Amino acid sequence: MILIKLGGSVISDKNVPYSFNKEVVERIAEEIAHFYPAEGFILVHGGGSFGHPNAKEYNIREGLVGDMERKRIGFSKTHQAMLKLNDLIIQVFLEKRLPAYSVSSSSIFLIENGHIVYGDVEVLRRLIEKGFIPILFGDTAIALDKGIDILSGDQIVSYLAKMLKPSKVIFLMDVDGIYDKNPKEHKDAKLLEEIKEIPELEGSAGVDVTGGINNKLKEAFKIAKYCDVYFINGKVKGNLDKAIRGEKVGTRLRF
Amino acid sequence: MILIKLGGSVISDKNVPYSFNKEVVERIAEEIAHFYPAEGFILVHGGGSFGHPNAKEYNIREGLVGDMERKRIGFSKTHQAMLKLNDLIIQVFLEKRLPAYSVSSSSIFLIENGHIVYGDVEVLRRLIEKGFIPILFGDTAIALDKGIDILSGDQIVSYLAKMLKPSKVIFLMDVDGIYDKNPKEHKDAKLLEEIKEIPELEGSAGVDVTGGINNKLKEAFKIAKYCDVYFINGKVKGNLDKAIRGEKVGTRLRF
Repeated sequence: MILIKLGGSVISDKNVPYSFNKEVVERIAEEIAHFYPAEGFILVHGGGSFGHPNAKEYNIREGLVGDMERKRIGFSKTHQAMLKLNDLIIQVFLEKRLPAYSVSSSSIFLIENGHIVYGDVEVLRRLIEKGFIPILFGDTAIALDKGIDILSGDQIVSYLAKMLKPSKVIFLMDVDGIYDKNPKEHKDAKLLEEIKEIPELEGSAGVDVTGGINNKLKEAFKIAKYCDVYFINGKVKGNLDKAIRGEKVGTRLRF
Repeated sequence: MILIKLGGSVISDKNVPYSFNKEVVERIAEEIAHFYPAEGFILVHGGGSFGHPNAKEYNIREGLVGDMERKRIGFSKTHQAMLKLNDLIIQVFLEKRLPAYSVSSSSIFLIENGHIVYGDVEVLRRLIEKGFIPILFGDTAIALDKGIDILSGDQIVSYLAKMLKPSKVIFLMDVDGIYDKNPKEHKDAKLLEEIKEIPELEGSAGVDVTGGINNKLKEAFKIAKYCDVYFINGKVKGNLDKAIRGEKVGTRLRF
């Protein structure tokens, strides 16, 4: 079983509110269809331009403080916006005859300090067993510390990798992999084809409410203990296909 | 804490696909707003004209048999249709400044023979504790017996009543309560103001994929062991208000 993270910047343009890169998602679904049902899949997607504007407007990361009525309403609105993005992805997969099935992250996870500390994956196991492709998403979540918070897609990937032990975890990004510097700011940035320890990186390609590339790598190294981890450009045709086959593409983490 | 079931025929016209009785839901939200936040609430709604047409078209109740690809896709489509109805309800509540929060039933429950046999309510407890009004819904669900099946809103109510022990469970219907016969077919049908045992009833007011009035009553009597149970007309202004206050309205179950 393969766990795939669809980065928010792959499926959506972070600078255009409520934008959806339908053609990119169609192509990703087509590449998954080369392997399904012989291979099982579970997907997690980021917030893109659906989740982040709401999360910022209501300052969800701050927790359940201040104007509580407004906070609670913003918390719910952010979740509903994420469900809309999730629905767009689900519909693309169904059109491609792939049995994607929506699972609401906030219905099953409790978090603390941004990390999942409680999560029941029994339903996910059964969905996969029955031939479905569960699709979860970065979401609002009840937090033991702050009351409410944002749960990033990367945290979900990290948790699911530990609990479900996929053979492979593939992160789809809008750049070719992990670079020694931010490739969007530095022309001389060098792609790291294989990394064995967490490198010191300068800044992130695009800033979001859930932490950027350094956090992503920290989480990915935890996962690499259990399975192969790839970072690839999800916007380039054929990349996902290559990563699933285990061919050389993007950045691979190895211990 | 009060558990409310919004019958599918209250929030939607079962004969008009994808119809939503927005004004009815607005009025229900307004009556809840008289009591929230002093009183906590959790809601479950039925499928109405969103869930049933899909569930029937793909014959979900039959289980994961026959054309499995089509079955899986229909299962997912039915869930997405329910999420759309749920979103319409959530938006009405948010407009009324009530912090409704969507919880996907199929993300937390496993069923067998139509009954919930596994369900993690920890997230629901926390949502209520933090002042939210969780709104669940009749949904598709993974079934231990048939692979996939439909989970009715009434089954969810029954399970939540046992697990969360609300002080009161109120069923909103499109008739005034429980009658000795189907009031839509018999003019001489008599409203039963109080019932102490399961009566023998003839047929159901409206047929749906999840069982009708006899099933509803059987489940309700299980609940009545734990709390007060009301059946009221959700389309009549002031009824919900009265039931919450404990005034005489509709049908009340008493042991």
